[in-house]
Amino acid sequence: MPKTTFNATAHLQKGVQVKAQSRNFEITVDEPKSLGGTDTGMNPVELVLCALGACQSIVAGAFAGKFGITFSDFRVELEGDLDTDGFLGKSDVRKGYSEIRYNIHIKTDEPKEKVEEFIEFIENTCPVGDTIANTVTTKLNKIIIE
Amino acid sequence: MPKTTFNATAHLQKGVQVKAQSRNFEITVDEPKSLGGTDTGMNPVELVLCALGACQSIVAGAFAGKFGITFSDFRVELEGDLDTDGFLGKSDVRKGYSEIRYNIHIKTDEPKEKVEEFIEFIENTCPVGDTIANTVTTKLNKIIIE
Repeated sequence: MPKTTFNATAHLQKGVQVKAQSRNFEITVDEPKSLGGTDTGMNPVELVLCALGACQSIVAGAFAGKFGITFSDFRVELEGDLDTDGFLGKSDVRKGYSEIRYNIHIKTDEPKEKVEEFIEFIENTCPVGDTIANTVTTKLNKIIIE
Repeated sequence: MPKTTFNATAHLQKGVQVKAQSRNFEITVDEPKSLGGTDTGMNPVELVLCALGACQSIVAGAFAGKFGITFSDFRVELEGDLDTDGFLGKSDVRKGYSEIRYNIHIKTDEPKEKVEEFIEFIENTCPVGDTIANTVTTKLNKIIIE
């Protein structure tokens, strides 16, 4: 399936709680109380970090065999800087992340050089990494007033 | 809290299943069988669409009062084009999304022009939208071999 179209829907509930669905899966997205929510789920920018770390982990799991590397554990810790003054209209800073950093933990007996090559391969292959690091055309198709 | 650092971790399980956490919340990320997974959760690129739609919905919920608009329902349908040949190393196309489109459904009696202004405000304010549409510095901090 080369050119694929992925789908999702997001439906606002009470306050700023959202039910987001893709195929038969649903997640609850919310904000912590400090950002005006009821704290019933991660917020969208935390979800972006999860998507990136999950994507890197999936590339690791999917390509380990082809790469000829074995490991018994793989874990990514991520952090992203975001100035909420942008979102709140208090400043002209960008609204989204300015920088996202990650540490990769891997339990393996492979030589350091091979591990580094593998991590570099993961970074260059990860679809979510490319989506975040580079520009993507995002556009409103239509507004449906009901 | 202007300059904020958000955090998450992703931990590879069996195959390509991942448990991703942020604060006290956890989600399961996986791939459908057609992409080599066991289909126990959304995949990372679906999660990105959910994050974008949830973020737009949260901006709608959070700023409706300030904007002086009332609505009884708000829903976003999203779709994104991604050529999986990039990820699979079969082609030089980019690995991530090339384009993401969305339809916004809003149940309201407000005039069309006001609704359009509100949607434009949402698009310009959404942190995840900015993160995806524009470039973000993403970088490996360190590799920890255990």
